[in-house]
Parts: sequence; C-alpha cells; structure tokens
Amino acid sequence: MSDSTARPLDGMLEQIRAFVRHELGPLEARFLAEPFRALLPAMEEARGRVKALGLWAPHLPREEGGRGLSLAEFGRVSEELGRSPLGHLAFNCQAPDIGNMELLHAHASPALRERWLGPLVRGEVRSCFAMTEPEHAGSNPVHLSTTARREGDEYVIDGHKWFTSSADGAAFAIVMAVTDPDAPKPHARASQILVPAGTPGFRIVRNIPVMGDVGEDYFSHADVRFEGCRVPVENRIGAQGAGFLLAQERLGPGRIHHCMRWIGVCERAFDLMCRRAAERELAPGEPLASRQAVQHWIAESRAEIDAARLMTLDTAERIDRGGVREARVQISTIKFFVAGVLGRVLDRALQVHGALGMTDDLLLAFWYRHERGARIYDGPDEVHKSVVAREVLKGYGVDIGI
Amino acid sequence: MSDSTARPLDGMLEQIRAFVRHELGPLEARFLAEPFRALLPAMEEARGRVKALGLWAPHLPREEGGRGLSLAEFGRVSEELGRSPLGHLAFNCQAPDIGNMELLHAHASPALRERWLGPLVRGEVRSCFAMTEPEHAGSNPVHLSTTARREGDEYVIDGHKWFTSSADGAAFAIVMAVTDPDAPKPHARASQILVPAGTPGFRIVRNIPVMGDVGEDYFSHADVRFEGCRVPVENRIGAQGAGFLLAQERLGPGRIHHCMRWIGVCERAFDLMCRRAAERELAPGEPLASRQAVQHWIAESRAEIDAARLMTLDTAERIDRGGVREARVQISTIKFFVAGVLGRVLDRALQVHGALGMTDDLLLAFWYRHERGARIYDGPDEVHKSVVAREVLKGYGVDIGI
Amino acid sequence: MSDSTARPLDGMLEQIRAFVRHELGPLEARFLAEPFRALLPAMEEARGRVKALGLWAPHLPREEGGRGLSLAEFGRVSEELGRSPLGHLAFNCQAPDIGNMELLHAHASPALRERWLGPLVRGEVRSCFAMTEPEHAGSNPVHLSTTARREGDEYVIDGHKWFTSSADGAAFAIVMAVTDPDAPKPHARASQILVPAGTPGFRIVRNIPVMGDVGEDYFSHADVRFEGCRVPVENRIGAQGAGFLLAQERLGPGRIHHCMRWIGVCERAFDLMCRRAAERELAPGEPLASRQAVQHWIAESRAEIDAARLMTLDTAERIDRGGVREARVQISTIKFFVAGVLGRVLDRALQVHGALGMTDDLLLAFWYRHERGARIYDGPDEVHKSVVAREVLKGYGVDIGI
Amino acid sequence: MSDSTARPLDGMLEQIRAFVRHELGPLEARFLAEPFRALLPAMEEARGRVKALGLWAPHLPREEGGRGLSLAEFGRVSEELGRSPLGHLAFNCQAPDIGNMELLHAHASPALRERWLGPLVRGEVRSCFAMTEPEHAGSNPVHLSTTARREGDEYVIDGHKWFTSSADGAAFAIVMAVTDPDAPKPHARASQILVPAGTPGFRIVRNIPVMGDVGEDYFSHADVRFEGCRVPVENRIGAQGAGFLLAQERLGPGRIHHCMRWIGVCERAFDLMCRRAAERELAPGEPLASRQAVQHWIAESRAEIDAARLMTLDTAERIDRGGVREARVQISTIKFFVAGVLGRVLDRALQVHGALGMTDDLLLAFWYRHERGARIYDGPDEVHKSVVAREVLKGYGVDIGI
Repeated sequence: MSDSTARPLDGMLEQIRAFVRHELGPLEARFLAEPFRALLPAMEEARGRVKALGLWAPHLPREEGGRGLSLAEFGRVSEELGRSPLGHLAFNCQAPDIGNMELLHAHASPALRERWLGPLVRGEVRSCFAMTEPEHAGSNPVHLSTTARREGDEYVIDGHKWFTSSADGAAFAIVMAVTDPDAPKPHARASQILVPAGTPGFRIVRNIPVMGDVGEDYFSHADVRFEGCRVPVENRIGAQGAGFLLAQERLGPGRIHHCMRWIGVCERAFDLMCRRAAERELAPGEPLASRQAVQHWIAESRAEIDAARLMTLDTAERIDRGGVREARVQISTIKFFVAGVLGRVLDRALQVHGALGMTDDLLLAFWYRHERGARIYDGPDEVHKSVVAREVLKGYGVDIGI
Repeated sequence: MSDSTARPLDGMLEQIRAFVRHELGPLEARFLAEPFRALLPAMEEARGRVKALGLWAPHLPREEGGRGLSLAEFGRVSEELGRSPLGHLAFNCQAPDIGNMELLHAHASPALRERWLGPLVRGEVRSCFAMTEPEHAGSNPVHLSTTARREGDEYVIDGHKWFTSSADGAAFAIVMAVTDPDAPKPHARASQILVPAGTPGFRIVRNIPVMGDVGEDYFSHADVRFEGCRVPVENRIGAQGAGFLLAQERLGPGRIHHCMRWIGVCERAFDLMCRRAAERELAPGEPLASRQAVQHWIAESRAEIDAARLMTLDTAERIDRGGVREARVQISTIKFFVAGVLGRVLDRALQVHGALGMTDDLLLAFWYRHERGARIYDGPDEVHKSVVAREVLKGYGVDIGI
Repeated sequence: MSDSTARPLDGMLEQIRAFVRHELGPLEARFLAEPFRALLPAMEEARGRVKALGLWAPHLPREEGGRGLSLAEFGRVSEELGRSPLGHLAFNCQAPDIGNMELLHAHASPALRERWLGPLVRGEVRSCFAMTEPEHAGSNPVHLSTTARREGDEYVIDGHKWFTSSADGAAFAIVMAVTDPDAPKPHARASQILVPAGTPGFRIVRNIPVMGDVGEDYFSHADVRFEGCRVPVENRIGAQGAGFLLAQERLGPGRIHHCMRWIGVCERAFDLMCRRAAERELAPGEPLASRQAVQHWIAESRAEIDAARLMTLDTAERIDRGGVREARVQISTIKFFVAGVLGRVLDRALQVHGALGMTDDLLLAFWYRHERGARIYDGPDEVHKSVVAREVLKGYGVDIGI
Repeated sequence: MSDSTARPLDGMLEQIRAFVRHELGPLEARFLAEPFRALLPAMEEARGRVKALGLWAPHLPREEGGRGLSLAEFGRVSEELGRSPLGHLAFNCQAPDIGNMELLHAHASPALRERWLGPLVRGEVRSCFAMTEPEHAGSNPVHLSTTARREGDEYVIDGHKWFTSSADGAAFAIVMAVTDPDAPKPHARASQILVPAGTPGFRIVRNIPVMGDVGEDYFSHADVRFEGCRVPVENRIGAQGAGFLLAQERLGPGRIHHCMRWIGVCERAFDLMCRRAAERELAPGEPLASRQAVQHWIAESRAEIDAARLMTLDTAERIDRGGVREARVQISTIKFFVAGVLGRVLDRALQVHGALGMTDDLLLAFWYRHERGARIYDGPDEVHKSVVAREVLKGYGVDIGI
C-alpha cells in the first residue's frame, strides 16, 4: 500500500492497532464463549478508554467530536478495527449505527437530531435499520410490503422485517416503509421513519438464530413486526418518498466500511494462518509451512488481500473526490470482489488449522460462519455483477435491462 | 445411476426414503432449535419403528439381525439416511458406532463381544472412538502421545484426546494408545483398548464448541483425558501393536459410509435449492430459477453429485470384490473428491436461499457449518491428494516419500 | 473402472492400445511437424494393418465388417483411440464420418447407401457434415439461413456454412438446409441433403485457420458456400423436414464418442504429466514430483478423469438400454462436465512441462489449442448447463423456457 | 485508476492509444495471416511515424531521446502498447531489447555501449537474451550448464540455450554463462557476455515451433547452440561473476513491463468480449449480453483487470521510490496474480466468441496460445508463490528454505 499516506494518519492507525490488540484482544475469548451481554461492562470500560484516547467515533467531523477523516482515511481505520469482532463497537463506528449517524446528521430535523443523534454519537444508545423483508428478495429493494399510512399527524406502520441487525437493545429503529404506493416511479414510494423502541405496535418477534448463534444485544438479527405502529409525522427523515434516495446515499460509504472491515478480518485470519503454519509440526522439525499447498495459500491470500485493499481504497478516493454517483460501478465491483477474497482467505486459514479451526475457541469459525453473509447481504454478489455488466455494456450501446 | 441394481434393494431404499421423509422429517425443526437431549424420547420411538419395519442396522449380517448388505448396497442406504441429520442414528448405523460394531465383531474376544457388542447392536448403548490428539496433526496417525503402559494384567492409560465424537453419553470408548513405544516400525506401536465409561481416570473435560454448537449427547465432540486410567488387558481388541492395522481396516468401509452420507446431504441440499429457485420470486412471475447463474449452479451440482456417487459406488464395489487394499487409491480419491462436491453444493444451495440460508431455521446452515469438517477429518484433503499422487507415481519409478 | 467387463472386450482394448502406441506413436512427431497430406501414405498403410487385424470400424455391426459393439463398449475403444490424434482416423471411426455412416445406414435410400455408404465404410472416401453457420449462434440450431429450394426434381441450395470439418478432400457433404420455411414448428423446417464434392455451386472458400493451424485434408475446418447448388431430390436423407430429428439422433452417440475421445486425450496428457514429474529434476535428486503442487495436480486429475469416465460410460449404458431420449439430461451433463475436465487436465499437464509444454514438439500444445473447442462445439457449455437445469426444474413445476 | 495522474502523461497516453488503434490496428489482420517478415516494411514505416511524433522509446531518459518516464509512468504506456501485439515493437520498447538497453546502459563498457547500445536505441538492430536452457528448470536459475571458459583474452563459450526469443535476425545475443564454476556461492558463478551474430560457434539451430507458430524474426523463440564460440573478454557486461546480480536487477522493471502489457492484452480482450456480447444475437433482439453468464464474466473481468492494474502500478511506484529490493515480494506477487487474470480474461473472451474465437482471424486465439506462457516464463507461478510465502513466513520465524 502507498507510503505516501500522511504520517498523522499512520500514527493514529498504529495507536488503534495497539488498542485493538492489547485492550480488545483479551476480551475475544470471552466474546467467543459467553453470551454477549456478559461482556457489556467490559466493553463499556473499553469504550471509555477509547474516548480518553481521543479516538472515539473517528469518522465524525472534528466539530462533533470525531477526527474528520476522509472516507479513504476512515477506511484504513475500519481495517484496523475489523481485526477484532469488537473493534468497531468499541470505537462507536459500528454498523448500523454509523450509517444511522450519517443519515440523521444529513437529513433529520434539528429536533430528531437533538433527541436521537446526540445520544448515538455519545454512545449512550444503539439503533437499528429495518429494511429487509422476509417475503421479498433483498436484491430488489423497491419490492417492499411494509406500509406507513398517513393518518392526520401520524404514520401508521404495518409490516414485517427481518435481519434487522442489533434491534435487540436498540433505542430506536429507522424503518423503510411505503408511504406513496401510487407514485409513478417505484423508487419514489418509500420513506424512512424513525420509530422509538417501546412504541406500541413495534415488536421484536425473536432474534433469528443465524449460523449457530441465537445472538443477543448488539450481536443479533431480529425478526420485527410493525402492527398498527403509530409515530408522529415529524419522525420521518428527509422528504416523503425519498427513502430509496437516502438508502442509496448511505450505500457507498457503507460499502467502504464493510469492505475495509472484511479486509481487517482477512488480515487477522492471514496472521492466524501464518502463525499456525509456522508453529504446527507435522513431524519434528517439519512445520506445516514446509508444505507447498500451505505456501501457495499464503501467497494467494497475500495477493488477494492486497488487491482487495487497493480496490477499496481506490473506490473510497473516488467517492471522496467525486461522490457516490461517480463511483457506483466500483461500489458494486468491490462488493463481490472483496467478499470473494474474504471467503477464500477464511476458508484457507481454517483449513490450515485443521480440527482446531472448526472449534469456537478461535475467531476463524466465528467469521467463517457469520461472514458467509458477506456474499448475500446488501444484495447478493450475483446482482452486483449484473449491475457492473449493465454499466459496462451501456458503453457498447446495449441495455440489458436489469 | 445404474438401473441394474436388484429390485429388492430398490424396494428397501424406497421404504427408507419414505421413513426418513415422513418420520424423521418432522423432527428436524426440533433438532435445529432444541438441545439434542430433548429429542431423545422421540428418537427412541423412531428407532422402535425402524426395528418394527425390519430395517434396523441394515449393515449387519442377517444372522445378527441386519440385512446382510454388501458395502455398495449399504452405501445406497447410507445416502438415503444422509438426507436427514437424524437418519443414521435412527437406523443404528451411525458413526462411530458402526465402525466400533465392525471392529468388535471382527476382532474382539467373545467376552468383550458379549458384554459390549450385543448392547451396541441392539441400540441400548452408544460408544466412541478416541484417536485424534490435539497436540498432533491428524494427518500423521503414527504420531501419538497417549500411552498404555502394561502393569501386570492391566493397561495404565495416560493421554489427551479430542474430537472424540459422541463421547458424551457413550457407554465405552475404544482408545488408540501406544503400547509398544520401542517397536521398530512406527505402525506397530499402538493398540486399541476398550475403556468403559466411568472407569477412574477417564474423564470428559468438555464438549468442544464446534462451529457454533456446544453439542451434547450423540451430537458432540469431546475433549477427553486419560489419567492413570486402568483397564484389564483383556480389554485390548486384536493383537498388541495391531492398533493401526485395525484402524486402517475400518477406514475403507468408513469412507464409503461418510461419502454416501455426504451425497445424501448433497441431494437434500440440491432439492432445497431447486425448490427455492422455483418458488422464490424476484418480481411477480420471475422465479429465481429464471436466472442463468442459478441454472448453472443447479446443472453443475447435478453433474458433480452424480459423479461423486458413481465414484463412491465404484470404490465400494472394488472393496466388495477385492478388499480394502485393492481399492486404497480410490479410497483416498473419494475423500477429497466427494468432500469438495459437498462443500460446493452446500455453498450454492445456501446462496440461492439468501438471508434465509444463513438462518438456523433450515438444515443448510447446520450442514454448511458442520460439514466444513469433511475436508479435514480422517486426514485433510491435502494428505489424501499426496497419497494418490504417491501411488500413481510409483508406477513411474519415483517415490515421493510421504 | 468396472472389472466386470467381458474379457473379450478387454483383449480387444489391449490390442488397440498396443497398436496405437506402437504403430501410430511413431507417426505423431511427423503429425506435429509436417503438413497432414505428407502423412497420408503412412496413414493408408496403418489403416491396412488395422483391417488386417480385424479391428476396422469396430462400431459397425458384424455383418458390415465391424465388431458389433454396444455404445458403452465402443466408448472404451474410443478412449483408447483418443490417446493419439491419429487413432480414430486409423480405425475409420473418426468424426464426422462415423456419424455420417450411422446416418446413411439408418436413413438413406438404398441407392444412396450403395453409392456413398459402401466406400465410406471401406475407408475409400471421407465425408463432411455442413451444419454450423457463421451468422448464427450454434447454440440455437433452428436459427439457420441456408435454404434448399425445391425446383422440380432438384433442390437448389444457397447458403454459407463454416467449421465444416474435414471438407477438404471429402467426397461428399451432408448439408442441413431449410426446405420448409413455413412449417409451423421451427424444428420441422430443415432437411439433410447429400451433396457430392464437385457439384457446381458447392465451393470450399478456404480452410479456416484455427488456433495456429491452417489445416488441410482430414485435419481442417472449412468455410463453405452453396451458391445455386443443385442436387437431385433423391439426395435427401430421411423425410423432408426431418433434418433436426436426425441431427438430434446423431447427437447422443456422437457425444459419447467425443467424451470418450477426450478421456483418451486426458489419459495421454496424464501420462505425459506423470512421466515429466518423475523425470525432470529441479535439482539433483529432486524431481518435479517432489513438489506438492504437482502431486495435487496429479491427484485431482486422476480423480476427475475417473469421474468423467464413469459419467460417460453410465450415460452410454443408459442409451444402450433406453435410447437417446431417456438419457438426454446425462448427454448434456457430460458435455460440460467432461469438457471441463479435459481443459483442466491439459492445462496442468502443460504447466508441469514448463517451456517444453509450449512447444509443438509434444502433443500437449496441439491439444491445448484445438481441444479448447470442446467447450464450444456442439453447443457451448453454458447452453448445456441451462438445458440440464431446465429438465431438473420441470420436476419442480417451473418452466424456465429456454 | 487514479485521476491524480499528471495531465502531461494522460495526453501522451491518449496519443499512443490513438496511434495503436489507427496506425497499428490496420496491420493486425496481416500480422495474423502472413509470415512476420512480410510486415517488416510496414512496421519500419510505423516506427518512423512514432519517431516523428516524439514517442520513440519513451522509457529512455530524455537525454537519450526518450521521455524520461518513471517506471509507473512507463507502465501505463506499456498497457496502451499491449493492446496490440505490434505495439511495443513499433515504439522500440519491446522485450528483450528494452531489458538489454537498460543493461548495456547501466553496466556495459563505453566501447560496448557505443558499438551496440546506440544502434539498439535508434532501432537499427534488434538483440536477444540467452538464459534459459532446455536441460534445466527455469525455476532454478543457478542451475546452468553453459560455460564460458577464459582463454587468454577470450571467453570460449559452450552450451545449449532455448527460448532465446527474437534471436532470429538479432544483431547480438547477451548470454548467461558460468565463468566461475568454483565460486563458493552458486549465485556468483555466472557472467553475462555479449556475442555478436555471426561469431563462429554461435548457431541458431531452429526457431522452435510454439503453440502452432514456427515464428520468424522478432516473433520467434530460438534453439541456440554455442560450440567453442570465442569472444573477447571485453564483451563481458559488468563484473565477472555478476551475471545473476544483473539478471535480478533487470527482473523488477521487466516484470512491470510484462504485467502492464498483459493488462493491455486484457483490456483489448475485454473490449472484444463486450463488443461481441452486444452485437451477437442468439435470437432476434436477444444479444449474448442478455445472458447472465456473459454478464458475470464481464463483471468479473472488469474487477480482476482493475485489481491487476492497481497491484502492478503500486509495485512500480514502490520500485520507483525504494528500488527493486524493497518491492521484491510484490514483484513475485504480480507475476502470478496478473498472469492468472490474463488467462481467465482471455478464456472468457474466447468463450463469448464461440467458434469465431477459435479462428486465427481474431487476436484472441493468438493471445490464448502465446500468453499461456505467462504462467511459465520468468519462473512458473508456483515458484513465485513459494517465494512470496517464504518472505511472509520469515516474519513468523520460519525459513522454508526454497
């Protein structure tokens, strides 16, 4: 990676890396073995130390207490944090809160911002984002059933969402719901509405058991119902019908965050793989590293991770320079490219660990299970590939109409 | 697959398939959602019905209450049972008990057979097989630390085993331990010794959490310690120093059982994939099946599963005809070939299910997690590939010395 | 592979293998270095010896001078012959002549059979089959421009064909042309018509240079024009409008021939790979075979070739038992499955040879170049995959309409 | 790719791209159909126009008539030139001449420089580099048989080289030969010596037929013998025993040249693929581009080409900043990474073209054949992967000793 990066960022990255290793590392064994709520006090303490170090929510502008990083710069932070499953949460830049912060910051009314954004930024509360629905393919986001019918000064929300990550324990949800079913353009039918936890008619049915974990608190994916759930019209974020526009806007930075987090996961897995290859002996004096298959996995992983990072940072720089629209082909490209690298690197690292890799004593099995979702969430790889092809083929005078 | 198979077998296969679907199918949701012990009564009932149908332990000779199937015939049974995670257990032909039955049948003293084989065959008890050690790579089975020192009429066993599957609740373990550390040939140093549960010094440290499941009872993998554990010399199975020979013997049939079970898993996953592709709509009237990527996954999976079955049955027929030794290259070949097919088919089926595939509401995520082990247990793929190459290259006058 | 095969076939296979190795092997260097016509005298001699051995055209019924082999039996012969690029030609069972023999035998009038089939069977002439057109995708065979307009007792043929293999030097072509453009079913519009070489209006424009070879005589692919080319109506083979039906009929056996030939190519490449791995030293005493990457290529190739053979022979047996229609899914399956194996095996064998593999001194580069077509001709892999999916999905109540 | 690139370079790149398309494009059909010597007059003319445009040999310092480009900048030029097989030759920056220029410039005596470097820079002569030997694996460069025995003021060279590219018609060869067989370090045994064409004992045995082309003149790979070939000691380049050191030095920049040329090939193949997908109809109104398999190939190719470019330019920038040694892991990484991308992109582009892709009417088949060598020459991928692993694993305290 480029050495030309400004030194101040490098210093911060080193500081973060050290914190992740020395302060969060010791919590990881507990993370793997205990229910997540048992870790909350320790996490709270860690978050306090992050604040004390001035590293809190570094994605935020300086005036809001952050570090005013560009997207490409925050991407590098995200990689460092991604080396631990606890990294982003400790620094208060975890999805979906980080996206909700950006959204509220840019589009919410002053009243909403004061009531909800402040506590979120300060890490006093968490939030969730209710978009995906079980009855509709996530790859077609305009295909929604949840409705928000206007009645006087209220929206009455009805619908069924799932994979609403981190809903368990969240102070509020931001819900995507159809407010204008008759709008001629399908993309102008939905709005985003903030629903406080505890609002009657807003119910978490269950935390969906995912890949062996029921999950709880931050680490959970809820099945959520809205049943005649009423919120004041002022709880809408942005203009009515602008729901998809806002969702699109969040997608570019969100993609960078995810991809760089995945790269952090890859680097950690790579480190575990190399360490194991160096230490595990097949026979006295013959480490696993002496096997060419293992060597080639290391080399291929090194190449792919480096490529993934260059691709993602290049995309982040494009967004920094020209905005999300300019970079939309790259934003789709890194989705499937980096998710593919992630899957292969985790698979190789696990294989090098043999039976140990199958256990929940290491992070590998956790990531192997949960990061399988990387090829699915935010639109499956297949959709993003067709989007890239669609854009490329426009230049050849053909519209593939997807 | 060949139509030439005798009709009687086909009838039995249909009967088994119906039982798996109609009697075990309804238990699967509970299997995925509840601790396994909660299912034991229902499983006990199902096992009773299997006995009543005369399908119990079909791998056994007729005189022992089985159906006297050849290995290739039982392979086809194993495929049918593999369509459910509960299949083999319901029919009392689950690993590791099936291997222990074969072992005791062929090599145990009459006293051991009467005391332990009878109850095992009748399904009154379960057993386990303690071979793998955490400190040594499974790919080098002569590299063992567990010892069984002779003292008078007893063996005193000391050592550490793990991934001793189904130890939790087992009536006895068969343990591989070094009895002759000074034997000139490394393959003649170990013996197999039966250790009853409850023997002082035989301790299950914990069930290892594996891929999100702590596991219990039959579905578990234990960390096991032997600490000055004494058993009478009569508990040895086969000759002293014959441990590896017996382990090798079990490997051929065991491989067929596993591979055909994996093929059953593949067929079930294939069925789920096709069903989902046909039913899930991307837009009204546009099922997932209309997408060429999905079509190609279906076609590639169909081809690969068929190839895996032909390869495995061909190997089984070779063993039936000429014994394990004749077929040893094929036995290594199907290990990595079928495990690879299994991994790819599960991955595609999961991808077609999108977010739903990530949930523990379906079998896919269970298999995706636990069958990742197929490329690791019984020796990782990489070892088997080198074994195949070694045998091939002997024909070219070169000894690659692995 | 099954040992149960009748001994007589095995004896014949050994005889053929020996002939290919000892009689054709010495011609291969000349085949690679000289224009093909220079080899014709030597080939003629070899064909004479094949006849003398009673091995001529073994696919033919005994009464026509062949060996009366089933399709599965001939498949195994085809594998042996496929080990040399000269094999099929030497035994007079080379494409496209073998397909033309079958076609004329089953559907031509006695007069046509006497005039053209006899000489073909006796190896006095060669023939070609003109179906593919440059302007239309081969994957959609009903999309044809060549027409055969009836005028009195003649057809007047106009059109452009290419990849008409072996047209150079052929005594006649069998041409697929639209005779009934207004037939309601697209599959009933074309007929197959025999056009003798030298008929005015039948012109070989050029031998298309393919993958580095202009080609000539049997080893060539012609660009062919029909310009007002008149042949008597009696030259039609089968009923008018039955062109596609006959083409379909030829496809099943043709697929077996091709796939088994490819497997022969694979076995030869595998042999070259192993030989090179054993002989080439990276350093004194360190053969290429000591490298795990090479070992794994050998093992993976061994597995894939065995799987390809079992799949193809299983398909051949199905056709032998139940006809082409019964086996049509398998016929599509082996197309892409075996072509994929072929590509990977050749690629690995070439890589093991390093720079030598790039030279035209060995067969590897010849096959690497020309067998790239295996994934394209007779319909690209992608079409066959969708066909398999279509048939599978019918069972799930969905018609993907391809 | 980065927009931050200085405008002057962008202008030059556009100029070069236009030249390649409009001036060299029309020669490509002849290049594919005619012996290369027939193109020499046209090439000479094109080279004249390149000089007139001031684009000649842009890799050279300004004082030697070039453009003084950094390696990263020249990399981007190399990509543009790589879009045509005639590009580098037309601009006089073709391998192996460009490497020989660098070598002579940096290490030859003034006399040698004047006699040989001048004409080479001016494009009056061509040259070759004789390193690879048929008897030794290219992956172990210290394993050489060619010797240069000192006799008085002369070296007497004996040995056998092959794949000496462009020897046919070259004015001189630079030969790697063992001058110090007893040097304790194997890397200090060889020297590089300039041998003028026509020197007695220096014989081109033949142009090796490679992938269907015998080749001639610049496009050829010779089998070369040195038999008592005498040249003055002054013809040595650099110090005696420094042969490998110099070879290593050339490798870094050479790798960038090759990789960026491959990326140019990829972009051209990508363009052909998209064009074909847009134009070829499967049925009226249904272009190939409507098929998801084709869309995914386009997207995957786009992603991989972009990644390859970022990786290569990042490596070039590292070399520019810190020298070859600093970047040696990356130099090995891009070798296998970019070669892999090249192979896959060409394969997909060819598949999209169907039968047409197999013909020598397009560039695809030419590149498919000849660029297969990319995974072999300059050390096969497997060696470079092990090198990367070796360097990575040093950081884990293990020496894999390759």
